[in-house]
Amino acid sequence: MPLIRFGVSIDKELLVKFDRLIKDRKYTNRSEAFRDLIRQELIQEEWQGNHEIAGAVTLIYNHHKRELINKLMDIQHDFGQAIISSQHIHLDHNNCLEIIAVKGSPKEARRLADTLKSVKGVKHGTLSMSSAGKGI
Amino acid sequence: MPLIRFGVSIDKELLVKFDRLIKDRKYTNRSEAFRDLIRQELIQEEWQGNHEIAGAVTLIYNHHKRELINKLMDIQHDFGQAIISSQHIHLDHNNCLEIIAVKGSPKEARRLADTLKSVKGVKHGTLSMSSAGKGI
Amino acid sequence: MPLIRFGVSIDKELLVKFDRLIKDRKYTNRSEAFRDLIRQELIQEEWQGNHEIAGAVTLIYNHHKRELINKLMDIQHDFGQAIISSQHIHLDHNNCLEIIAVKGSPKEARRLADTLKSVKGVKHGTLSMSSAGKGI
Amino acid sequence: MPLIRFGVSIDKELLVKFDRLIKDRKYTNRSEAFRDLIRQELIQEEWQGNHEIAGAVTLIYNHHKRELINKLMDIQHDFGQAIISSQHIHLDHNNCLEIIAVKGSPKEARRLADTLKSVKGVKHGTLSMSSAGKGI
Repeated sequence: MPLIRFGVSIDKELLVKFDRLIKDRKYTNRSEAFRDLIRQELIQEEWQGNHEIAGAVTLIYNHHKRELINKLMDIQHDFGQAIISSQHIHLDHNNCLEIIAVKGSPKEARRLADTLKSVKGVKHGTLSMSSAGKGI
Repeated sequence: MPLIRFGVSIDKELLVKFDRLIKDRKYTNRSEAFRDLIRQELIQEEWQGNHEIAGAVTLIYNHHKRELINKLMDIQHDFGQAIISSQHIHLDHNNCLEIIAVKGSPKEARRLADTLKSVKGVKHGTLSMSSAGKGI
Repeated sequence: MPLIRFGVSIDKELLVKFDRLIKDRKYTNRSEAFRDLIRQELIQEEWQGNHEIAGAVTLIYNHHKRELINKLMDIQHDFGQAIISSQHIHLDHNNCLEIIAVKGSPKEARRLADTLKSVKGVKHGTLSMSSAGKGI
Repeated sequence: MPLIRFGVSIDKELLVKFDRLIKDRKYTNRSEAFRDLIRQELIQEEWQGNHEIAGAVTLIYNHHKRELINKLMDIQHDFGQAIISSQHIHLDHNNCLEIIAVKGSPKEARRLADTLKSVKGVKHGTLSMSSAGKGI
């Protein structure tokens, strides 16, 4: 695809901060960083609408809480359509990290993440909102 | 562990909003929601310091950009100690979702995420900051 | 489901060997071991026919062979329907273990495994033939 | 690495069969097929000795058997050193496919596979014996 070049005006103070950010995050130039900012916004939009999205739910829990695992498993099977697969890591004798790859409607993905996170015994949960890649 | 019960004062307006949030997120009561808020803060702390953390990096990219995959692979092998395993999903004929489970120092995890996200051709990247579970 | 009990005649020599195998493999009794033998046979049958099966392809390769990864990725996208997700482990600075979860027709799964294994640079490949679980 | 070329004598009948096998398995020439046979043998050797190996355990089970999941989880945490991560796929409302990536001593990997497979309720289990890649 052809690259289009155009000017951008930013006040100095903001640009200094932006350049520091760019350096911290290992970008090689401002354009690359801008492209990422735009894509980030597009993904935010995707998650507001009905487009197909992709993402990941991460959970930390203690697998010794017996009913917990069964509940998490049941919920995942109930949301079968939204889940592609999950990755399970035994962090130590007690703690598990579970990363669930999700795909589908943003609403369904959010509902899955909220339902899993609210299960008693889940120590921490996050939802990484990403894209199915077509619109960005 | 014994549950300790204590009072909390919150102005009405804020509480109404909090209760709405709790309902939206499927919590069964305020205490459960508060516990999660506290853990969330503790995890933020963990990511500021030198404690061992766990998390996930998600990447969306078009696998047809030939050099891209090799670069991503090289970076991951360079950060070998910080990576447990990764999960790869072929979203469609072009797009890949890669979810990398990470463990180690917050600084290293951030550096890995930033390095991967800045590779040209990566459409989107996120870093889910979670916990190794011991401190929460 | 009701358990049905019935007698089985086996010559002593064979039974001694079978009991040793049972003990080695941690079975608690002969019935459990027999059930597994029967399921094993049913799965063999599933892989001869057109039933939906599930399984895993494992690959060991050196990721420094540049074209290799691109080829493996292209093949996987071509067989998109048969692949659920894959798990990637960086064994050391050179070697990767990739485990691809497959589902679909036995013929397609075999073809995928053979195609991946025959790529120059793949050091070793296996196909674990398992079941989608419905018929066993 | 330099390729060394040498002659091999095989009776016709066996060669015909071998060539058919090579064709079925998509090899482009006999040398490539021979290299794989040799590596296959080396891996068999690795699994007889004390070298570090890598592999995968696949399990099929019905997640509705409540105690089953807890047992599988406990066993995996007990063998924590041998397990890198696991991949979980919800095949349908009842059946799960779990693929556990293992690394370590052959004896330990076998013991893990046997212990998991012998748990009541596990419908099928396989152990893919592969290599950590250094010796092949």
